[in-house]
Amino acid sequence: MVKIKVTFPDGAIKEFDKGITTEAIAKTISTSLAKKAVAGNFNDQLIDYQQGLVEDGTLKIITKDSPEGLQVLWQTGAILLASALSELYPKMHFGEGKTTEHGFYFDTDNVDGQVAETEFEKISQKMKEFVKANMTIEYKVLSEQEALKAIDGDPYRMELVKKIAAENNGQVAVHVLGNFVDVSSGAKLAATKGVKIFQLLSVAGAYWKGVSSNPMLQRVYGTSFFKQKDLEAELKRRQEARERDHRVIGNDLDLFFVDPKVGAGLPYWMPKGATIRRTIERYIIDKEVSRGYEHVYTPILANLDLYKQSGHWDHYREDMFPPMDMGDGEMLELRPMNCPSHIQIYNRHIRSYRDLPLRIAELGMMHRYEKSGALTGLSRVREMTLNDGHTFVTPDQIEEEFKQTLQLMVSVYSDFDITDYRFRLSYRDPKNTHKYFDDDEMWEKSQKMLKAAMDDLGLDYYEAEGEAAFYGPKLDVQTKTALGGEETLSTIQLDFLLPEKFDLHYIGADGEEHRPVMIHRGIVSTMERFTAYLTEMYKGAFPTWLAPQQVTVIPVKNDLHLGYCEQLRDRLVANGVRVNIDERNEKMGYKVRQAQVNKIPYILVVGDKEVAEKGVSVRRYGQDNSKEVKIEDFVNEILADISSYSREVK
Amino acid sequence: MVKIKVTFPDGAIKEFDKGITTEAIAKTISTSLAKKAVAGNFNDQLIDYQQGLVEDGTLKIITKDSPEGLQVLWQTGAILLASALSELYPKMHFGEGKTTEHGFYFDTDNVDGQVAETEFEKISQKMKEFVKANMTIEYKVLSEQEALKAIDGDPYRMELVKKIAAENNGQVAVHVLGNFVDVSSGAKLAATKGVKIFQLLSVAGAYWKGVSSNPMLQRVYGTSFFKQKDLEAELKRRQEARERDHRVIGNDLDLFFVDPKVGAGLPYWMPKGATIRRTIERYIIDKEVSRGYEHVYTPILANLDLYKQSGHWDHYREDMFPPMDMGDGEMLELRPMNCPSHIQIYNRHIRSYRDLPLRIAELGMMHRYEKSGALTGLSRVREMTLNDGHTFVTPDQIEEEFKQTLQLMVSVYSDFDITDYRFRLSYRDPKNTHKYFDDDEMWEKSQKMLKAAMDDLGLDYYEAEGEAAFYGPKLDVQTKTALGGEETLSTIQLDFLLPEKFDLHYIGADGEEHRPVMIHRGIVSTMERFTAYLTEMYKGAFPTWLAPQQVTVIPVKNDLHLGYCEQLRDRLVANGVRVNIDERNEKMGYKVRQAQVNKIPYILVVGDKEVAEKGVSVRRYGQDNSKEVKIEDFVNEILADISSYSREVK
Repeated sequence: MVKIKVTFPDGAIKEFDKGITTEAIAKTISTSLAKKAVAGNFNDQLIDYQQGLVEDGTLKIITKDSPEGLQVLWQTGAILLASALSELYPKMHFGEGKTTEHGFYFDTDNVDGQVAETEFEKISQKMKEFVKANMTIEYKVLSEQEALKAIDGDPYRMELVKKIAAENNGQVAVHVLGNFVDVSSGAKLAATKGVKIFQLLSVAGAYWKGVSSNPMLQRVYGTSFFKQKDLEAELKRRQEARERDHRVIGNDLDLFFVDPKVGAGLPYWMPKGATIRRTIERYIIDKEVSRGYEHVYTPILANLDLYKQSGHWDHYREDMFPPMDMGDGEMLELRPMNCPSHIQIYNRHIRSYRDLPLRIAELGMMHRYEKSGALTGLSRVREMTLNDGHTFVTPDQIEEEFKQTLQLMVSVYSDFDITDYRFRLSYRDPKNTHKYFDDDEMWEKSQKMLKAAMDDLGLDYYEAEGEAAFYGPKLDVQTKTALGGEETLSTIQLDFLLPEKFDLHYIGADGEEHRPVMIHRGIVSTMERFTAYLTEMYKGAFPTWLAPQQVTVIPVKNDLHLGYCEQLRDRLVANGVRVNIDERNEKMGYKVRQAQVNKIPYILVVGDKEVAEKGVSVRRYGQDNSKEVKIEDFVNEILADISSYSREVK
Repeated sequence: MVKIKVTFPDGAIKEFDKGITTEAIAKTISTSLAKKAVAGNFNDQLIDYQQGLVEDGTLKIITKDSPEGLQVLWQTGAILLASALSELYPKMHFGEGKTTEHGFYFDTDNVDGQVAETEFEKISQKMKEFVKANMTIEYKVLSEQEALKAIDGDPYRMELVKKIAAENNGQVAVHVLGNFVDVSSGAKLAATKGVKIFQLLSVAGAYWKGVSSNPMLQRVYGTSFFKQKDLEAELKRRQEARERDHRVIGNDLDLFFVDPKVGAGLPYWMPKGATIRRTIERYIIDKEVSRGYEHVYTPILANLDLYKQSGHWDHYREDMFPPMDMGDGEMLELRPMNCPSHIQIYNRHIRSYRDLPLRIAELGMMHRYEKSGALTGLSRVREMTLNDGHTFVTPDQIEEEFKQTLQLMVSVYSDFDITDYRFRLSYRDPKNTHKYFDDDEMWEKSQKMLKAAMDDLGLDYYEAEGEAAFYGPKLDVQTKTALGGEETLSTIQLDFLLPEKFDLHYIGADGEEHRPVMIHRGIVSTMERFTAYLTEMYKGAFPTWLAPQQVTVIPVKNDLHLGYCEQLRDRLVANGVRVNIDERNEKMGYKVRQAQVNKIPYILVVGDKEVAEKGVSVRRYGQDNSKEVKIEDFVNEILADISSYSREVK
């Protein structure tokens, strides 16, 4: 018998007969392990528990309680779903089944009418039958001909089979469950019993292979867990995420929309969303100008040569839009980043050390090619406007400028009342210094400077070796998203490389030319991502200064109280407050509820009493009671509220 | 002898021998005409005075005092220049000579170092020699071979000869002056004497054939007139235009720049120019919002289908950028106009007659493909941001909405102190109504409405039949440019067509669907063009509210007065004033002059007296004297100035 050598995570090496399964190996270790285990990780690839090993390699045994165990469960959920569907809808075509961050999906196309969420009950029932019968899921390797025959003319799987066969010497690995033959890759459980705890979640359209000229398939989502309490926790998380989801809120409050037919990842900001964005834009520009930034406008197009010189074309091309041939010898490119544009501003004049730090800032529109499948509301888009800034400093100014940028950032976070964030200081990997821009002294000195600045300001942070950019160390601000993920909201990055590439200079006190250091920094990220973030953080209840409509005035009776309401409105408008009168012929209670649904910060009700006393009845969003105040006092109250930004007014 | 028939402008037809020249014909008419005449216009083409006519045709005799006479003079100036250059620089290569709006140029390329303006004296001297010698300028038609031989290997003219020969059955018309053989088209005088009064003007780089991948040639500009006083008038006009030219001022005041190497027609706004632009943007948005406009942000890219539906792709394609193939079946197009984007906003919801007029506005970035030769500073660019707005109205609301838009326009013009403009009301051509959108009643009614609105508001205007757009009547505001041209600054255009193309509806009071009318309107044009216009109108002396730096504070002695200056500055900054202290180690007089050169509205000088009296010495831009005032009073003065926009404060 031919033997193979298997290396284990602890370094131990054992010999087994060729063809032995992970299950058999697990049993040689311990019975309890064999029971908990569900699959193997062989040479960094998940494999079925009963799949034979035919070569030397490294094996990790995957148990239920590991993230990889969940992957296997979800793969199994996907084939279970597909198999049940194929029995219920005999004419259905199938694409692939895949796992997501929180479960699985299968792409389907039904000739007799697509699957709808209303059919989930029926489908779940069929899946439960299969689970109860504990049907076997068989792993097989077929020839291309055999595979094509097995899938019986399904056009999508046919395409997959041909591709897999072409890449694997004509061999196609499949899983068979009942009558369904699945060509999706990924390890699965050996039988259906493991998928006892599952839930179907939703259906959404998805282009075949993510290409918009292909047919639209129905993607059916589900999830599954080994324990009931894990499923419950996931369903609760989903519910909370949905309540915070900026796409849902953006739709409910009419803030923005995206229409993939007109352009995927290209949001339209409706008037209310635009008001929020404009308020943020004016706020951050004014803040930055007051801190010595020079705001500019630079073109979003440039000759492709600019991005060849900057290195973006070589290293970042796949995220860039295709260049446009202008027919006069010029190739124009939509910019993927603003740095080269700000370098043009720097280079417009000869700079002296007296001009530094030179802080160039812009609300810079950029375009990045994201796959259509990755596009999400306002948070992952193809056209975005970044609160961008580049400071040009002498090497000696790094620490002080870094500090000033941090102080700006902390001040902005405080104005928006953002508190749930962590600072991450990223250094180069000390074991692989050759992988970074080559100037040891600069790295050592600047990393120390950044750390000293953080310590000096008394800010909490964690250090991440090997997380620096190629061109310099950086600080990132990590925030939590509504969906539980982490994303970078703000960043400060040193850059030693671009000044080299563009041969930047300043004239030092010694009269000689010196090389400046660039600091890339973004405080509030892109307008798109930041608005998405704030929408989720505030759950759509924007603080007064950001709220598209700050006040609604409701007359108890139009014929008696409208005139007074108009005076009130005019007085507020004169103070810059965004206010509307709700003079529809609806009941007062209805209007109040509508204002609450729209999360308007202040509801003012005006009846006989208010007119008589020159007052208003004020109800703050989120509060059950209203209070009577004089107009004068209300104006002062709301102006104090607005000028305190997102902080509570005492 | 073969005869030809010549028709004259008065309709008379005469027979002449084939080959007769314009000169000979002029002599048959009158000796005085023959003396004043310089060329012919034969079948709508200018021809040499001594060129033989070989076919029937219409002839106009061109005299010195006509615009076409000037064209002939300038063509002659161009060949005179080239011939003189070729004698002075034997290795020089030549492109074409052409006329401009105000003179002529010739494109040159000199191997031994390019022509500079410092050599104009020498070149002019040589040209004068040629004029004095009254050298003949001979018109000849050569074969391709003869022409190639005549130009003796000059690569540019060789290219031209081949092109001309290919288009003219192998024949090439040339003019010969001395040793120089010119292949540029265009009629010329018969001898050099006519170009007695000329002036060389400037040299500028120009790509061969306007294609940026071709070599850069030196374009030498000159002008010429038949009378000395005309030349003097032109030089004076040039001087005045130069003083107003926004490109010159933009450079002097560091407002913006364009670098064709990085992108032709793509301006970079330096911090000072950006401050002006931002001030205009905030002003117009706030103004529009206060008048019921809903400002939005919409993407600058859309699926090409959108512009196919709107008709732009069919009718406007040559002004559009090339589409980008996104590789997933989507073709994305940079928008040439914002109307289809705002239609997306309209169509986001079902609209009721109660929602109309619906006023959608945006500072909308657009891209238009302009030939590189047409690009001019900020006034002709490829990327622009338009103060755009689209109002959707019921047909009955046209007049009232038109009036409101006009009132907004007049108010904005008053704020900027723009007074030199004319209203043009453009109707369809009553003799060719079939060339317009087909709805006679709508045209008749709406044209009357526009006229009634103008009359009602008591505005002066002129009517232009046949100047309407295909899709509806319009009002344009025509302003004068610094260079004496006229351009449209603002526009209000009715559109019956786009609502059809996009099948727009509103629900009327009758519960039925009705078609709205769209009104396109731009108040302050694009940010680029408007800033160019204002720069020229104000000659760079921006009114205080727009000035990038509003105040400069000059301490008489830094060591004694700087602290007081800083208090003063902080007080002004707290009031939102843009102020700097000039604490350089320079003489006070120098600093004051520098502030004047930079056209800063207020110069504050602080010495012992001012510190003692808590005052400042204020010098207003453009005034010779300064006055002493208390700080308090100065703050009030400048705030009143700023809030009065561009109007004089009493």
